[in-house]
Parts: sequence; structure tokens; C-alpha cells
Amino acid sequence: MDSKQNNDEAVLIPKNKSKGKAVVDASPAPAAVGTTKATLVRRVGWKKGVAIVDFVLRLGAAAAAFAAAAAVGQAEEVLPFFTQFLQFHAQYNDLPTLAFFVIANAAVGGYLVLSLPFSITCIVRPHKVGPRLLLIILDSVMTALIISAAASAGAIMYLAHNGSVDANWIAICQQYTNFCQQITGAVVASFVAAVFLITMVAVSAFALKRTTTTTTH
Amino acid sequence: MDSKQNNDEAVLIPKNKSKGKAVVDASPAPAAVGTTKATLVRRVGWKKGVAIVDFVLRLGAAAAAFAAAAAVGQAEEVLPFFTQFLQFHAQYNDLPTLAFFVIANAAVGGYLVLSLPFSITCIVRPHKVGPRLLLIILDSVMTALIISAAASAGAIMYLAHNGSVDANWIAICQQYTNFCQQITGAVVASFVAAVFLITMVAVSAFALKRTTTTTTH
Repeated sequence: MDSKQNNDEAVLIPKNKSKGKAVVDASPAPAAVGTTKATLVRRVGWKKGVAIVDFVLRLGAAAAAFAAAAAVGQAEEVLPFFTQFLQFHAQYNDLPTLAFFVIANAAVGGYLVLSLPFSITCIVRPHKVGPRLLLIILDSVMTALIISAAASAGAIMYLAHNGSVDANWIAICQQYTNFCQQITGAVVASFVAAVFLITMVAVSAFALKRTTTTTTH
Repeated sequence: MDSKQNNDEAVLIPKNKSKGKAVVDASPAPAAVGTTKATLVRRVGWKKGVAIVDFVLRLGAAAAAFAAAAAVGQAEEVLPFFTQFLQFHAQYNDLPTLAFFVIANAAVGGYLVLSLPFSITCIVRPHKVGPRLLLIILDSVMTALIISAAASAGAIMYLAHNGSVDANWIAICQQYTNFCQQITGAVVASFVAAVFLITMVAVSAFALKRTTTTTTH
């Protein structure tokens, strides 16, 4: 590792020297500082815009996650009849996957609301890197949580709608139509929240990159 | 937006001025450049280390994803008997979710192999931001894909192991034990690949942040 670092130094320093050579005669320091300052101001404005987009997406994702949790949590259907094979009462906690879906969506919604102050910090102080980095990492983890919830509930709802002839699983949605519609809607809302979260991660990564570009100027 | 930019300018420029004040008498420019150069060299070494970790994680994740796809793709069990309700032959394409699992894992494995050159670029040129940013964004998307595949297959395998009394779905794993074991192992491998991918995103975000810190010095 040390020898590699030395190699870098050998590559890096001549580069800096050759860059400096062109400007050195015309008082390099003030010129460089002036350019950087102007670029920085423009970048700060750009990053404030990114932070506002992040805030709006965050609100939308929180609303979608809470709506999904609430829709599944209160979904319930009692059939006016019952047959030999089917129960006559469907509720979200009949299937453990749906219980996980409710908990995960409520957790992600709660996280998104709690993260709003950090997002506001990014708007007020666009040049701060700490909050943005915290958000990008926590957002990635929460994206993973909500996608796993949405995908597993989606797989179960696919089975509920279509059944499986090979596994001899019946399509329960032929009876519980309202229940299934409500949960399918919630799965879609959860995927919308996931797309918002991924967009937030990508946008924050770009904002981190724009800061980085400033260094090379 | 413009008025906000002006506010930033108003805040930013005095800051820079007050920073400069302390050093201005002692020829500020060369001192500042010297510090930045030394810091940069240390940072470049650190980032080369991060890029190597990223490369190793990428190899591990690719191996896990391909293993998962292959394990499910070739999982097959023929029972020596059959009953009134059960088929006597189980294969991955009996359930659409498992077919999705195979495709998604193969796609993510393929992406990870194709992204190795970019990861090597990050090792050779640790100060380049472009490849790192490309990787962080594509990694996020691929993480979403593999997690949705693993979670949906996990939900189906939970059902296959435990069944659901309320939905009247039988636990098919009581018959197809080997088939279920193989697929459950593949789901675990897929989640391992997902954890590697999330770690890669977090580590790359930190590497982007380290570049950023250089700006503020």
C-alpha cells in the first residue's frame, strides 16, 4: 500500500507543477481563488435546488409509504358465505408477509418524516456534506427495506390473484375481490415510494459529485 | 432562486475573506497549496484502498448472484410417488416468482462482471469521480433488482415451507424437501449479494465524501 501511495505522489506532483507553470507568471493565487469562488456560488445554488427536490420527493415518499401501510392495515373483508375450503374472513395478519409489509412501510414512513430536518439542513446549508452523506446511506438501507416489503407482498398477491396449479394453491382473490384490490393498490404505492427513494439516492450522489468537481478546478 | 443565490454569495464571501485574513501576511497561496497537496496524496491512497475493497466485494457479489441463479435454475425434484393433490415433478419454472429470481440474479451477476473494468479504473485512477458516480447509481438500481428478486422468492419459499391455513395453501416443502433446501440456499446467497451491493454503495458514497472534504480545507 505504501509503495502505491508513493507512486501516486510521483504521478500527482508533476501534474500539479505542470498545471501551475502556465499561470505562475500572472500571479496565480488570486486568479484561481476568484474562479473557484464564482464557480462555488453557482454550485451552491444548484445544490440548493437539488436539496429542495430531495425534500419534495421525501414528502411524497413518506405519504406513499404511510398510505400503503394504512391501506393494508385496515384491509378486511367478510364474505357473506363460506364454503368447505375457504375461511369467510380475510385480514392482513392472516399472511405473515402482509404483516411485514405493514411494519416495513410504517418504519420507512417514520424514517422519512424524521429525516425531514436533515433535508431542511441540506436546503439551508447546501455546501454541508455531512447531512447529505448521512441521508444517502440511510436512504439506501430504507430503499432496501421498502423494496423487500413491496416485492414479497407483490409475490404473495400474484399468487393470491393467479394461484399456482403446480403447487395446488388456489386463487383466493376470486372470493376476496375488495381485499385483494386494496392490497394490490398498497403494493403499487409502496413501489412508488421505493422509486422516489432511489431517485433521492441518485440525486444526492450527483450533488456530492458536483462538490467534487469544484476540487478539480 | 436568484435571490437565494445572492444570499449565499453574501454569506460565502465574507467567510472566505475572514479565513484569508489570518494567513494573508504570511504569503497565503504557497502554504495553502502545500497543505492541500499533502492531504490530497493521503486521500488518494485512502481512496485506492476503498476502490480495492469495492473490487473484492464486487467479485464476491457476482459469485453469489451467479451461484443463486444456477442453484435455482437447475433445482428439480421428481418424487417416487404421487398423491391425489400433488404433482410429482417440481422445477423452478412452475412458479413465475422463481423464474424472475433466476433472471434477476443472472442479470445482476452479468452487470457485476461487466462493471469490473470500471472498478479497476477506480483503483488505477482513484481521483477520478466519473466511474465512481456511474457505479454508485447503477449499483443502487441493481441492489433494488436483486433485493426484490430475493424478497419475493423468500416470501414464496416461506409459504412453501409453512403453507397458510387461512388461505388454504399447503406446505409443498413437506414433499419436495431437496428442491426447497436448494432454493432456500439460493435465496440466502442472493441476500448476501444484496448486502455486498449495499456495502459497495455506502463505501463509494464515503469515497465521494472524502474528495469533497478536500474542498473545504
